[in-house]
Amino acid sequence: MEESSKAILRPYQERMERELRTFASLPKLAALRDPISYCFTLPGKRIRSLITLITAEHFCSDYEDAVPAAVAIEVLHNFTLVHDDIMDEDHFRRGSETVHTKWDIGTAILSGDAMVALAYQKLLTAQSPYLMTMLEAFTDAMFVVCEGQARDKEFETRDDVALDDYLHMISQKTARLFALAFVLGYLSSSSTTDVVGELTEMGEHVGLAFQVRDDLLDFVGDKKTLGKDVGGDWRRRKKTYITIGYLHKAKTNPQLPHDLFALPKFPAARDAVAQAGIVDEAQEFIKARLDKAEAIAATINFSHPVLHHLLQFLAERSF
Amino acid sequence: MEESSKAILRPYQERMERELRTFASLPKLAALRDPISYCFTLPGKRIRSLITLITAEHFCSDYEDAVPAAVAIEVLHNFTLVHDDIMDEDHFRRGSETVHTKWDIGTAILSGDAMVALAYQKLLTAQSPYLMTMLEAFTDAMFVVCEGQARDKEFETRDDVALDDYLHMISQKTARLFALAFVLGYLSSSSTTDVVGELTEMGEHVGLAFQVRDDLLDFVGDKKTLGKDVGGDWRRRKKTYITIGYLHKAKTNPQLPHDLFALPKFPAARDAVAQAGIVDEAQEFIKARLDKAEAIAATINFSHPVLHHLLQFLAERSF
Repeated sequence: MEESSKAILRPYQERMERELRTFASLPKLAALRDPISYCFTLPGKRIRSLITLITAEHFCSDYEDAVPAAVAIEVLHNFTLVHDDIMDEDHFRRGSETVHTKWDIGTAILSGDAMVALAYQKLLTAQSPYLMTMLEAFTDAMFVVCEGQARDKEFETRDDVALDDYLHMISQKTARLFALAFVLGYLSSSSTTDVVGELTEMGEHVGLAFQVRDDLLDFVGDKKTLGKDVGGDWRRRKKTYITIGYLHKAKTNPQLPHDLFALPKFPAARDAVAQAGIVDEAQEFIKARLDKAEAIAATINFSHPVLHHLLQFLAERSF
Repeated sequence: MEESSKAILRPYQERMERELRTFASLPKLAALRDPISYCFTLPGKRIRSLITLITAEHFCSDYEDAVPAAVAIEVLHNFTLVHDDIMDEDHFRRGSETVHTKWDIGTAILSGDAMVALAYQKLLTAQSPYLMTMLEAFTDAMFVVCEGQARDKEFETRDDVALDDYLHMISQKTARLFALAFVLGYLSSSSTTDVVGELTEMGEHVGLAFQVRDDLLDFVGDKKTLGKDVGGDWRRRKKTYITIGYLHKAKTNPQLPHDLFALPKFPAARDAVAQAGIVDEAQEFIKARLDKAEAIAATINFSHPVLHHLLQFLAERSF
């Protein structure tokens, strides 16, 4: 990422870091405060909350009114990470131990649950005439994210997951929170609900691009920059944009190893994926989604200077 | 329980059963719908939602407006059961397998999470000028219940838990939802917030009585009526009103076995508890709390016919 892009995003990220640290220190009981604080001292990109802030700033000239919603979304996102890490038996995230590894499963379940309550507490402080609509959108998103995670779990035991099934799953599990981030930023500060539909659609595209970039980085990323091992999806035989796309290609191309997951080592799988042209296809998918998001933004004159940098970052990010 | 009391509570319970079954069938995805529906097909007393309905009926002559809040509270309560059963490694509840035993831990975490979202969705449909206050009370209660559960977990590794620590913990983990049940019933249907303080206090007393009766039943209950093994708290060396009270008495009475948990079999522990007079003390505690609740009810002219039967049931219940 360009240094200039980083510099432009930084003030928003720093504001969120401050808010999240204050927020995470609220629980009086150390048994809850310690794991919750730990989650927010780990480095994070804070992309969802950044989206909320810039959307509010564009539609209302300043983002103060959207800070509660931005915090609530970031906390909801982190709650899903804490619980998903238990289900996926992931022991590391962003280079550090996950909550259930550092503490135990009970602590991770309970601190995740408390984070949901804290997220709602924060959102309930938002000063907006559309607070009820915001609460409904937040709640619907939480349910849809759970549904996405349930589908993802189901995919683990299925061999017939089509790319469309996968895209539907990530539209629920990942993209829905991006859509929510745009919508809550807007509703925190706007005096109308006119462009909720457009912002939802934008968020869907951005979220799908974000997730497919994630899938791609698991094959072509660099462990140090990424803060976690590459090849994790392959080792766990996970259905992702890359692995599903590959298996589909291998069916009709006899030159490709038939079973990606049966290859002896990860570099062989990475090479097979490159040979199949999936890396390029994924990049095209990401670009198409981000182009659509930009096009929708243009139709509603959403032209915040950070937005362009953010979309570019999402297309090229290496962490 | 008298047949006449049962008959008086039945119409409210039947209404809740119908609502909960319809509600639990809402998720489209079987991976969420099946465990959630399962929770609500298990027999339950539905006491919290019954409190919500009768409070609304008293203060507003009919309880229709309070049905969403009653459902939301019952669902929130069941969410805590599903997650607590994982943490406590409980494999049976109400005579049936717990969700994480019948399915797996991931399914139990995720269906619990989805239940929180569904509870908020339902509460958000309540038609009340005090809906924001209701949402705040609901959210605060959810956080406090998590805090109570965190304390309960902490007690497992401590030998110095005083009765006051224990009562504070159950006031958070159990009594807070009873207080919420009264308050949401009232706010669903009232045109003022005048007696929220009194109803909160009433709920606290009722909730404490409920929990201590639970602790007592684990020693003196009948397995068949209770739907679960008796002596579970003793076997797991749990801090309860009974075990803490006993250990306190044993310090000053050399005729009592010093370490309740070191006794060879449960009947010996049950006899020691009876010998120490803890059963009577617990009954007095329960009666005192329910008397206080009745006294507060009298100050606000809260005289619903079911309330009296309900308090009597809580004092004498055997399941």
